[in-house]
Amino acid sequence: MKQVIVVRSDLKLGKGKLAAHVSHASLAGYKLVKEKEPEFVDEWEREGEKKIVVKVEGERELFELYEKVKKESPCVIIKDAGFTQIPPGTVTCLVVGPWKDEEVDKFTKDLKLL
Amino acid sequence: MKQVIVVRSDLKLGKGKLAAHVSHASLAGYKLVKEKEPEFVDEWEREGEKKIVVKVEGERELFELYEKVKKESPCVIIKDAGFTQIPPGTVTCLVVGPWKDEEVDKFTKDLKLL
Repeated sequence: MKQVIVVRSDLKLGKGKLAAHVSHASLAGYKLVKEKEPEFVDEWEREGEKKIVVKVEGERELFELYEKVKKESPCVIIKDAGFTQIPPGTVTCLVVGPWKDEEVDKFTKDLKLL
Repeated sequence: MKQVIVVRSDLKLGKGKLAAHVSHASLAGYKLVKEKEPEFVDEWEREGEKKIVVKVEGERELFELYEKVKKESPCVIIKDAGFTQIPPGTVTCLVVGPWKDEEVDKFTKDLKLL
């Protein structure tokens, strides 16, 4: 089991802001799967809550990935709430899972680590 | 309401690893407060899940802060699970809350943003 968070590298967020956005995404994925398939969250927790942060170049790539992933794995697109310098509503990340390795890997394994 | 994640700047984690550790901390704080005082989590969510990432210079500073904070606010010390280059068991962050602004601010407001 793993959770993958895909971030837009073109936004050039600072380390702290980036970490806050990734945390927001991670929590959104956790809540989604906890609500729909809690046994998958339990297994992910038992295995140590593996999280991997990868990147895409921009918004278009993020949405293309989302369209593919959402047919097979639980995922959420994250928009900025307006607390940062970027315009409110800016899409910053996509979170996939926590979910089965093979299904998450299918669309994310070739993305570069952030 | 806010959640503050305090990270050790001396570990010099890369952006992606750092974001994964901060996410782990954020989720740990969420689960702790959700279990003990769920109405505080609800309020934090209604307000947009504010998260702030700050830094301290090393392990000693992190533990000193923890000793002070834990008397007043829910908080968790986060250890590395061993998935990264740093030795397993290394203490990486402290998460405080989500909790009341004034109580979180009391010990964290003077820390530098990451």
